[in-house]
Amino acid sequence: MIFKDIAVINGEFKVLENMCVGVKDDKIAYIGSKMPEWDDADIYDGRGKLLLSGFFNAHAHTPMTLLRGYGENLALMDWLNTRIFPFEAKLNGKDIYYAMLLGIAESLRFGIVSTTDMYFFGEDMARAVIESGAKNNLSLGITNFGDEDLYDLKNYKEGKSLFENYHNAGGGRLKIDMCMHAEYTSSEKVVKQMAEHCRSLGANMHVHISETREEHEGCKARHGGLTPAGYFDSLGLFDSKTTAAHCIWLEDDDFRIFSEKGVTAATCPKSNLKLASGICNVPRLIESGINVALGTDGVSSNNNLNMLEEMKFFALIHKEQWNDPRIITPEQTLYAATKAGALSQGREDTGSLKTGMKADLIAVDITSPYMKPSHSLLNNLIYSASGSDVSLTMADGKVLYKDGEYKTIDIEKVIFETEKSKDRILSELAEIN
Amino acid sequence: MIFKDIAVINGEFKVLENMCVGVKDDKIAYIGSKMPEWDDADIYDGRGKLLLSGFFNAHAHTPMTLLRGYGENLALMDWLNTRIFPFEAKLNGKDIYYAMLLGIAESLRFGIVSTTDMYFFGEDMARAVIESGAKNNLSLGITNFGDEDLYDLKNYKEGKSLFENYHNAGGGRLKIDMCMHAEYTSSEKVVKQMAEHCRSLGANMHVHISETREEHEGCKARHGGLTPAGYFDSLGLFDSKTTAAHCIWLEDDDFRIFSEKGVTAATCPKSNLKLASGICNVPRLIESGINVALGTDGVSSNNNLNMLEEMKFFALIHKEQWNDPRIITPEQTLYAATKAGALSQGREDTGSLKTGMKADLIAVDITSPYMKPSHSLLNNLIYSASGSDVSLTMADGKVLYKDGEYKTIDIEKVIFETEKSKDRILSELAEIN
Repeated sequence: MIFKDIAVINGEFKVLENMCVGVKDDKIAYIGSKMPEWDDADIYDGRGKLLLSGFFNAHAHTPMTLLRGYGENLALMDWLNTRIFPFEAKLNGKDIYYAMLLGIAESLRFGIVSTTDMYFFGEDMARAVIESGAKNNLSLGITNFGDEDLYDLKNYKEGKSLFENYHNAGGGRLKIDMCMHAEYTSSEKVVKQMAEHCRSLGANMHVHISETREEHEGCKARHGGLTPAGYFDSLGLFDSKTTAAHCIWLEDDDFRIFSEKGVTAATCPKSNLKLASGICNVPRLIESGINVALGTDGVSSNNNLNMLEEMKFFALIHKEQWNDPRIITPEQTLYAATKAGALSQGREDTGSLKTGMKADLIAVDITSPYMKPSHSLLNNLIYSASGSDVSLTMADGKVLYKDGEYKTIDIEKVIFETEKSKDRILSELAEIN
Repeated sequence: MIFKDIAVINGEFKVLENMCVGVKDDKIAYIGSKMPEWDDADIYDGRGKLLLSGFFNAHAHTPMTLLRGYGENLALMDWLNTRIFPFEAKLNGKDIYYAMLLGIAESLRFGIVSTTDMYFFGEDMARAVIESGAKNNLSLGITNFGDEDLYDLKNYKEGKSLFENYHNAGGGRLKIDMCMHAEYTSSEKVVKQMAEHCRSLGANMHVHISETREEHEGCKARHGGLTPAGYFDSLGLFDSKTTAAHCIWLEDDDFRIFSEKGVTAATCPKSNLKLASGICNVPRLIESGINVALGTDGVSSNNNLNMLEEMKFFALIHKEQWNDPRIITPEQTLYAATKAGALSQGREDTGSLKTGMKADLIAVDITSPYMKPSHSLLNNLIYSASGSDVSLTMADGKVLYKDGEYKTIDIEKVIFETEKSKDRILSELAEIN
């Protein structure tokens, strides 16, 4: 496939106009101003389009699509206890499969090619990923509240089996990560065992860290002043390649730990604002040389997987919070949404538009009035574009979404099934109440 | 025209499904579950659509579309002095006319039916408004830096003539407001004279208030401790119906003044974040019974007129800032973007979907994966929708935008002319440097 006469944002975040980009198999094989002389290539008319790396969502709970808009404007514990947890308790594998497909469809619509996910019913999620053609780093959150050994926990067993059966499935599109849910939802023993287990598998680690002040201060009270980052580090969790979600209440030494251990901070600005959790110190993370990637969190606290919207929040809120309109540039924003996410997922072979990289690409429509006139396509992409301007999403060289059509997902069936799941669960909950 | 089988958000912000809404001339003539028996009505198939009041943009500088993405990530004074002011100095009437049309096209694309505007070249702006079919409260900012009388200022004369020639033109679509630019850009004498002039015309007043800390503190230093709100109030400016933009640094007594004088606070969250100006205390404004409307500001600090995106920022940032996820509900958000804006513009006959109101309406597509499943269409509209989901925009009963097509604007010519203006100005600026 050849993208012809298209503007591109290349691996150095430079905009080049009137380019040709050739994809062979699953890789970017050619970038240049002239058409490559290939036989039988599909030609994509790139006029009025901008081609760039697809987005990498570094923290999500994709099947939470089912809870979109359910229970709004509640205090956190009220929201969790009266809405989220009771609803989630009713979910079955089929619900999750379709909810996951709906979330993947939405992700593709918004240019996300790969997602770091933490949820449950891993087999059903894995099946949806494989079928959809998207990429995913899938993990099941380990939680325990007593004296159990890790090895007796359901999610340990399921996660281990997932790793054995699905790690690197779909030609490497699906990776199985390990996951500690959070400090306050597990015992020290289990964290230590999980750190060891993850190291032994050579897997990635995914964990929530310092999302709320209560969690952060509670950890210090429980563990002799250790912050969540300090606590997990002391138990060896960061000896595996780790993506830590949220990271709002980090303290001085936490930045040192993240930097030394190569931990990625996956910041989720919209969710953090909506739940009133706080604002992650992204400027300091970047200054400290820490990999900062961008996540959406679950849609029940977002309430979408609109990555361009997430990027806009990322680009704006830190300017105000640190009183400096010069910080968080369009380049830094795009980096967080692409290369940083790919690196956090252990996908060194993607996340930028360079020859030899995997063809995980999106085309964005740049003809709308709100993208005109064009002083800078990069500025317009970050500050002016609308999430749904994404007109094509490709992973591993395969077009998965184009101009409203999904190539791998029966979107009408998926919407029908998720509405049915929602209705069933709501009626079951109504019976209880 | 009859919208058939459509979901609506009515004047009480309730969602009703499978409704019919009939428009006769410029008004909403019927809302009900059955089809009205009208002869020869155009039927709009409303399945998969949500019908609601159009949006009212309470503070903008619409022709700044020409500066979109020009000069990013600069400190405020650097940005103004090296980018904005030199560029603006090169603008002519034709530039403004097309830049205004581009901004109106963008506004319609994003469901904005009416805008409170402050800029210059008023005749050219007025012409664009009249031709486009959109609504506008247009004003020219008065500034002076010496001992002049108001009556000698160019913008006074131009504004007076605009008022005489265009106020309530286009069947009331165009209103001419009066405008003091800001405290730091005018003398006390001129403010007093302008307050008197505005009262004598019975016009609305539009003014920037407490956008930056420097402006706010500077005013206090210059005027014996008076805040900008206190200063303007003492000079009688608020005796006319006033819309005050930004209102970030308001102090205790300012809330009392706004409340007593019925001043509307037009908050511009995205611009305020991008320029690192601060966050308006919207919760306290609402608690004080002050009319809070939503504005985009100019696109050079936004960088679009995407009202659903603006609403999302409005809905989220205050939760975090005041550490309470329960505040700023979807209803309050939609009210700020519709009815509050209409009221601030002196348009009591619009801003909500009720029979007898002006037919200033938009239809929003609700079939996308990110609007599914649907627990609440209102929650999905505020928290999940994408700005460009607006599929139809109507003002005074006339369809101005529908499914990518503008009925009154030659969008290709407008884009061509604005690109030409931009290129000419950039080359003139390059010659200077």
